[in-house]
Amino acid sequence: MEALFEMIRRGDRPALARAISLVEDGAPGSRELVQAAYRTPGNSRIVGITGAPGVGKSSLVDGIVNELRSMGRSVAVIAVDPSSPFTGGAILGDRVRMKHRTTDPHVFFRSLASRGHLGGLTRATGDVLTLVGVAGFDDVLVETVGAGQSEVDVMKYANTVLVVLSPGLGDAVQTLKAGIFEIGDVFVVNKADLAGADRTRAELEMMLDMRPPGGWRPPVLKTVATTGEGLPELAGAIEAHYEYLKSSGGLKARVRNRFLASLEEYLKREMVDEVLRAASASGELERCLAALEAGKDDPASAASRLASQYRAASSCSALVPSERS
Amino acid sequence: MEALFEMIRRGDRPALARAISLVEDGAPGSRELVQAAYRTPGNSRIVGITGAPGVGKSSLVDGIVNELRSMGRSVAVIAVDPSSPFTGGAILGDRVRMKHRTTDPHVFFRSLASRGHLGGLTRATGDVLTLVGVAGFDDVLVETVGAGQSEVDVMKYANTVLVVLSPGLGDAVQTLKAGIFEIGDVFVVNKADLAGADRTRAELEMMLDMRPPGGWRPPVLKTVATTGEGLPELAGAIEAHYEYLKSSGGLKARVRNRFLASLEEYLKREMVDEVLRAASASGELERCLAALEAGKDDPASAASRLASQYRAASSCSALVPSERS
Repeated sequence: MEALFEMIRRGDRPALARAISLVEDGAPGSRELVQAAYRTPGNSRIVGITGAPGVGKSSLVDGIVNELRSMGRSVAVIAVDPSSPFTGGAILGDRVRMKHRTTDPHVFFRSLASRGHLGGLTRATGDVLTLVGVAGFDDVLVETVGAGQSEVDVMKYANTVLVVLSPGLGDAVQTLKAGIFEIGDVFVVNKADLAGADRTRAELEMMLDMRPPGGWRPPVLKTVATTGEGLPELAGAIEAHYEYLKSSGGLKARVRNRFLASLEEYLKREMVDEVLRAASASGELERCLAALEAGKDDPASAASRLASQYRAASSCSALVPSERS
Repeated sequence: MEALFEMIRRGDRPALARAISLVEDGAPGSRELVQAAYRTPGNSRIVGITGAPGVGKSSLVDGIVNELRSMGRSVAVIAVDPSSPFTGGAILGDRVRMKHRTTDPHVFFRSLASRGHLGGLTRATGDVLTLVGVAGFDDVLVETVGAGQSEVDVMKYANTVLVVLSPGLGDAVQTLKAGIFEIGDVFVVNKADLAGADRTRAELEMMLDMRPPGGWRPPVLKTVATTGEGLPELAGAIEAHYEYLKSSGGLKARVRNRFLASLEEYLKREMVDEVLRAASASGELERCLAALEAGKDDPASAASRLASQYRAASSCSALVPSERS
């Protein structure tokens, strides 16, 4: 693992790809790898890109990669793809994107699938971003599909969040409903050559007008990713937001939030999963569920009880032997 | 609270609406209300309805309500709407649906918004469904917007899950990507009067063919919610799936999963939130975050440490006084 970590640090791409697979699979040693990565802070700018299916996120990401490359920056793309645990890889098979980029050593592309445990995707993403940071890319783009809670969670790891929409389809309002609006630092109306682009833009500006004044005003940009239209302006907006974050102290706050999010994910695994495992082994979980089914208990009371038992069992049993000695 | 609970149990709709607001707001006494509800198991059939924005879920829900009413069944609709914490109620203002139903005492309609704490929506939904169950509706429909992790979580509370698609738009594949495919008990191709409905249906059937054989084979139905086409067949499919669940023992398993999901949510709040609160109060969280920022710690180690401190502090400090006495 130490050798693998050293290779990642020196910029070895196959080593990075292998390490990501180990982390995704929770393979032995992957925890040490991630721990080492957290202790080697990187300097990558992390840009999150989210939006509903069909707005052309994939083409836009490709366009941004081209734009950043033309500025001489190295780029990693992490596509978070909560794909079906059942069909798994087969559906990912259509990810033939970035083919033209595979020969460029300054571009790295990787899909993260949930592999059957959707709940762990957010944590895995934080770990993988930290690993990628060690490899020293100038920019890391994190792309999510869909617009639910997991997407909002994943975006916690980004410095700058692009929210992508397309004209028509009532997207502006739908995006709002999914709780994505607040997290946008830059709004992109992609497929701006379609009818309705100006209306979508105007709707967004109107919604932005309703925000409390002060701080960063998210720009609303129009792009046509397939032709490259608007991409230089978009790269400029990303840069402007990053500069704003650095000068306002917001960057430090976002990095801190990212660590807090990771900490929370690990605490959840450490504690909740452990309590459920212990309660399952002792038969207590079975008794709880039977009582709940019979209407003789409620989840709040049961959770309190399980939590107390866990605290008592784990710390005081450890204390007792030392008292005897 | 006891009086309020008694009113809900007797079928008082304004009382139910008030109780839901209390639970949503986490108002004083709402925990007792929810606890009482868990101890009064209902017999409602819970049907989840999910799908991407734009497939016509709202019209379909209205159509299903009409259909169930014509069968003499009482129906509650809970629309889970993770709306923007910023714009909040304003966006919900467009929910003028079910207007024609407000005079029917056997129909109850309620939107649940996240009110700024998206993470708690899943837990609140479980609590609200339990409250609604006390009111004795024959059917409770839970509708979610979007297709992310929160939707999958909410669907854990349903006995039967309808996954709704519409023709064109590449929905079939997009639905798959969001991890919704596996949880579908019945698939509905709505807007079936549009071109491409048969192709979407065929795509779904093909994907279903890839599933391991045995058990329930989800039917794929075509509907036109706005005209009522296909709705009697849909009501029949819901009934057939419920009968299958009862006869196969699957119903018991789903109810159990629902309680397990609630328990997990409460444990998370009970333990993770408490650890973070305690660590924040003692200044330990601040030290952890500073160490993480400096690359001198990693979230896995920090979480282990915080968890041990929590166990030691809460249980052994309780033990010490009793030993002294």
